[in-house]
Amino acid sequence: MPDLPTSELIARTLAGERVPLARAISWVENESEGSVELLDACFGASGRAFRIGITGPPGAGKSTLVTKLATEYRHRGETVAIVAVDPTSPFSGGALLGDRVRMVELAGDPGVFIRSMATRGSMGGLAVHTAQVCDVLDAAGYSRILIETVGVGQSELEVAQTADTTAVVLVPESGDAVQAMKAGLMEIADVFVINKADREGADRAAFAIQSALDLRAHSGTWTIPVQLTIASKADGVRELVERFEEHLAYLRETGDLERRRRRRLEQRLRDLIEDQLWRQFRAHAGDGIWNDALAALAQRSATPHQIATRLLSARD
Amino acid sequence: MPDLPTSELIARTLAGERVPLARAISWVENESEGSVELLDACFGASGRAFRIGITGPPGAGKSTLVTKLATEYRHRGETVAIVAVDPTSPFSGGALLGDRVRMVELAGDPGVFIRSMATRGSMGGLAVHTAQVCDVLDAAGYSRILIETVGVGQSELEVAQTADTTAVVLVPESGDAVQAMKAGLMEIADVFVINKADREGADRAAFAIQSALDLRAHSGTWTIPVQLTIASKADGVRELVERFEEHLAYLRETGDLERRRRRRLEQRLRDLIEDQLWRQFRAHAGDGIWNDALAALAQRSATPHQIATRLLSARD
Repeated sequence: MPDLPTSELIARTLAGERVPLARAISWVENESEGSVELLDACFGASGRAFRIGITGPPGAGKSTLVTKLATEYRHRGETVAIVAVDPTSPFSGGALLGDRVRMVELAGDPGVFIRSMATRGSMGGLAVHTAQVCDVLDAAGYSRILIETVGVGQSELEVAQTADTTAVVLVPESGDAVQAMKAGLMEIADVFVINKADREGADRAAFAIQSALDLRAHSGTWTIPVQLTIASKADGVRELVERFEEHLAYLRETGDLERRRRRRLEQRLRDLIEDQLWRQFRAHAGDGIWNDALAALAQRSATPHQIATRLLSARD
Repeated sequence: MPDLPTSELIARTLAGERVPLARAISWVENESEGSVELLDACFGASGRAFRIGITGPPGAGKSTLVTKLATEYRHRGETVAIVAVDPTSPFSGGALLGDRVRMVELAGDPGVFIRSMATRGSMGGLAVHTAQVCDVLDAAGYSRILIETVGVGQSELEVAQTADTTAVVLVPESGDAVQAMKAGLMEIADVFVINKADREGADRAAFAIQSALDLRAHSGTWTIPVQLTIASKADGVRELVERFEEHLAYLRETGDLERRRRRRLEQRLRDLIEDQLWRQFRAHAGDGIWNDALAALAQRSATPHQIATRLLSARD
């Protein structure tokens, strides 16, 4: 659809057509002309989907789990969009594997839409893009959006936290409570999952996490569950979906859903503004000035702080 | 030393005194008054230390390995600073455990300096602070700086990449080549380490990584080694130090050391400027305007893009 006008792309995306939707998402990722108009339309039409972030270390079986979650949600009559954020390196770009592996099982179901996103230069950019892509999928009518991130760094957490509910997936071997705490996962999880629970030590891992959770000061009345699953056999997946839906009900009842979404929107606004500020700065500074600054730095004839101050004051 | 004048703190830090050094680092972390002057002095006096980033998933045994590396470097007559970046969550703040666990073994050695850093709000801020702290340690005369990060996200990679050499530490179970690639580790490692190599599958993991590395297009003539270690017994640690020193020699011979450091400095300058731009923006916008913007967002009466555009154009 190379010549599709923006207004028609928007209308057909909002109507839930798959091919325009795929195109719309590419517009968002590439920040193509028309993407701003598209996003404005989608933002207004969004807010109905329940967004679930799935994060955890590589090798925890998140992709398989997400596939089974989608299947279970389909049984319950929901439509499902999967956004797989594959953190390739800053050097290579391009999303890995994700789509093809999953396609086999979910292919042909018109109620499922799958999209991989690659990390690009700025991570602020990735969190912004992920949230925007979710807006488009939300506006297109998918009722459940599963956002899968690989890795346990702050940036992946940021992406997972564009969701309403965040699930942290571990395996029995990674269940050690201190390690989970060190990874900063304890405080972002609404639901813990011990996947590959047929491996030795699953109960012990669940117990360790539960104990660590019990030690924490609680905020609110939500008791973070630790759900055992064997994603490859779909074991525990129905129960996990129930945990998610219970959390959604909790968020709605307490008003936390609204408060969380407000915080997410604030972060998005900030990311967007920071990105724009940097672009304006670089457009103003120009390559000549920038390269001179780098040369001075390399020779240590000026410090980063001195150069930053000089370049920023030159703007005024 | 509550009343130490800036000039004296700088002089005593550069002379390698430990108590002023600890104080100087706190200044940098807290961006205290005087920290700019301090950093300017340290930047000019830095560039001699070899900085080694140690990254990898939680549970890989990085802390133990770093302790043993420090001991080995001490045997070789080097002085060692350890910067442990503990990524606590955005909510809690504060560095975990790190110091105390290590202190036991390295305590009392005047040639070792250990410092934990906690992640704070902005991750750009963390990478900047880490690099600045390394400048201070470098200027204070430590010849080897070990930067340990927990987690495998983009942000941790950014921190590790403030170093000259980056080592990625895995365990036999995490050695699967595809998983390592998915985690984006393959392209940032100068040296791979399979720690806990007395566990089953260590040779297989090393082989899988080596095979995946062989498939890559090589840049330069450095062959990325895969070193097996059992940190708890100090097995393989001497060899790992030799891999590091070989890589340093390689970087020097090829001019890559200079090129890498230039790239790092460029990133630091950018982080610093982005941080300043945001602060200026928020100081200008003020809380009233910002809160009105958030309210409009929550009501979806305006989109993030519309509000960002409005706030940014109001600046001009």
